[in-house]
Amino acid sequence: MRVFIKIIWSIAVSVLIPFAGICQSGIVPETNMRSAKYPQILPNHHVVFRIKAPDAKKVQIDLGKKYDLVKEADGTWATTTDSISEGFHYYSLIVDGVTVADPASESFYGMSRMASGIEIPFAGGDYYAQKNVPHGDIRIKNYYSTITKSWRKIYIYTPPGYDNNPTKKYPVLYILHGGGEDERGWAQQGKTDLILDNLIAQQKAKPMLVVMPDFNMGGGGFGEEGLKAFANEMKQNIIPFIQKNYRTLNNAGNRALAGLSMGGINTLYTGVYNTDLFSYLGVFSSGWITGSQKDLADAQYNYLQKNRAKVEKNLKLFWISTGMKDDIAYNNCKVMLAKLDELKIKYTYDEYPGGHTWPVWRNNLYKFAPLLFK
Amino acid sequence: MRVFIKIIWSIAVSVLIPFAGICQSGIVPETNMRSAKYPQILPNHHVVFRIKAPDAKKVQIDLGKKYDLVKEADGTWATTTDSISEGFHYYSLIVDGVTVADPASESFYGMSRMASGIEIPFAGGDYYAQKNVPHGDIRIKNYYSTITKSWRKIYIYTPPGYDNNPTKKYPVLYILHGGGEDERGWAQQGKTDLILDNLIAQQKAKPMLVVMPDFNMGGGGFGEEGLKAFANEMKQNIIPFIQKNYRTLNNAGNRALAGLSMGGINTLYTGVYNTDLFSYLGVFSSGWITGSQKDLADAQYNYLQKNRAKVEKNLKLFWISTGMKDDIAYNNCKVMLAKLDELKIKYTYDEYPGGHTWPVWRNNLYKFAPLLFK
Repeated sequence: MRVFIKIIWSIAVSVLIPFAGICQSGIVPETNMRSAKYPQILPNHHVVFRIKAPDAKKVQIDLGKKYDLVKEADGTWATTTDSISEGFHYYSLIVDGVTVADPASESFYGMSRMASGIEIPFAGGDYYAQKNVPHGDIRIKNYYSTITKSWRKIYIYTPPGYDNNPTKKYPVLYILHGGGEDERGWAQQGKTDLILDNLIAQQKAKPMLVVMPDFNMGGGGFGEEGLKAFANEMKQNIIPFIQKNYRTLNNAGNRALAGLSMGGINTLYTGVYNTDLFSYLGVFSSGWITGSQKDLADAQYNYLQKNRAKVEKNLKLFWISTGMKDDIAYNNCKVMLAKLDELKIKYTYDEYPGGHTWPVWRNNLYKFAPLLFK
Repeated sequence: MRVFIKIIWSIAVSVLIPFAGICQSGIVPETNMRSAKYPQILPNHHVVFRIKAPDAKKVQIDLGKKYDLVKEADGTWATTTDSISEGFHYYSLIVDGVTVADPASESFYGMSRMASGIEIPFAGGDYYAQKNVPHGDIRIKNYYSTITKSWRKIYIYTPPGYDNNPTKKYPVLYILHGGGEDERGWAQQGKTDLILDNLIAQQKAKPMLVVMPDFNMGGGGFGEEGLKAFANEMKQNIIPFIQKNYRTLNNAGNRALAGLSMGGINTLYTGVYNTDLFSYLGVFSSGWITGSQKDLADAQYNYLQKNRAKVEKNLKLFWISTGMKDDIAYNNCKVMLAKLDELKIKYTYDEYPGGHTWPVWRNNLYKFAPLLFK
């Protein structure tokens, strides 16, 4: 009997859900273009997509999992997805095999191109809600890199009160995006300004600058060349530029570095070797890649073994986190943690469900920022 | 003989140009994604597009004119366009009838969605080049609108030196995007920061704030409802917000309002009726729409007739421009100018070739900004 009910139920769900877009009215996500009625989010976070494409042979939505849309008589293709988890998710539209951004959505730089994103509201999202609290600014600056010999963009969050306290100096968190992203990641996908505004309003975090550089130095990628180029960029260009143009507290105790995924690996490379520059490190959904980064990992563990006392003395916080077992970096991270245990290097480990995604990294920033500059 | 050469030449061009992408190496425009080799710009500004789409039936590029791409053996579709004029141009990729942004390009909010853009370098583009001069910031702020009852984004250019002169106050240019665009238009497509940085470095323009609001108030559009809602938004929310949060000179003589296309119509509506607030007005590629906006136009001309003395006394500059005969607003503008002549309202008219496009509006800002706040 129970099995029978379960079967009837699953038939009902699979038959009815595709029509949900017609029968039920959903929420229009904040990530939609202002005139786009779809995608819509149904209760329980199923998402209805409806796309006009009368001449296409095949239309899909790629949300990590690919959904085949079904063509209706008027040339609209539709589907209703599984339940999608909280917060921001990248997605793509695939028209006859060509992967593009959905014109119904705002675009976000990710996957090395402008991708679509959908913001799923959820009860726990209050910490990044837009509220009636004092707000900081996100500033877009151009600086000249003596390494790439080109002008580069950098985003900087200045906290509420920065303009009205012209003699006050602030600590700085440098925070890095992931692979295929750039300086916009933390400002847009990450909602860094809202997270910090809310934390500062509640006096849970100190007013600080949050500097969002672009770690892509033009080649190098996961090898030491790219990591070294960015470490030099930080030391020779980014930190001096920020300290020259903004009112910052210029010692290691007032400087933090964090990053997600590939940005976490940059944090390990730039941060662990430079604890005289950064007293706080945050490594989100990352860890040396077992296999391809073995030499880099071994060199770092060797360094830590030889410099344990210095690193322990300099580092006030070495905060490491993952999106739990669904996180593609979970195993790399666990291997690294075991090695740090073996080397008796202190760290704090945190985890939050959601895999290798922005909802996890927003939560990481929310937990990490209050621990800084105490 | 001449005709014969001309025929041979045109055959040669039409046969050779499509292969130009293969034979000739072009410039990769700054608007490409960092890993995208195409589009490429050939000498004389022909643009080569190459897009992988083995399963598509038809692939087009829409640059105002639509180009059908030709499929090659490996599933790549290619074309070489006509010569494209200077500066920034929106474009779209059309895959089997679905119009989307080209994944090879950066995206820009225009045409009421995220669209692709291509930046064609040209000899006269020096005034918006990134140079080694002092740079201002572009700031992204959120403010609460008591009219839409929602948080809205606004972009603000603060000039070089703003942070280091904490007692200095600045004049403000409020500048409006066109239809289907938003607060990002002038910051991204318009290169407002670079144009102002360069003008200020050469002491051709006074250091000023440039405030870039979003005039879309959710409905209303080209009718009086939308125009009135934005005029109220300026008076009740935007100007007070800017004056509260930035160091501004708060009188009409230090306030300018300008806009392009639909933003020009908002400038006419918000500006001409409020010369006690704005001493400088700029109307780029615009003018009341003959026909559909007849009542709005008549009401304004009637107002000007009755208030000619006041308007003349208040307005230091009424600067009106078009992109010449290719500009879709050219005739509307000319009709308006004839009416202003009849009413003996003083204005300055300027034109620059390029039609209804951003290269024209960049040039408008370049010419308009030096005339302000003298």
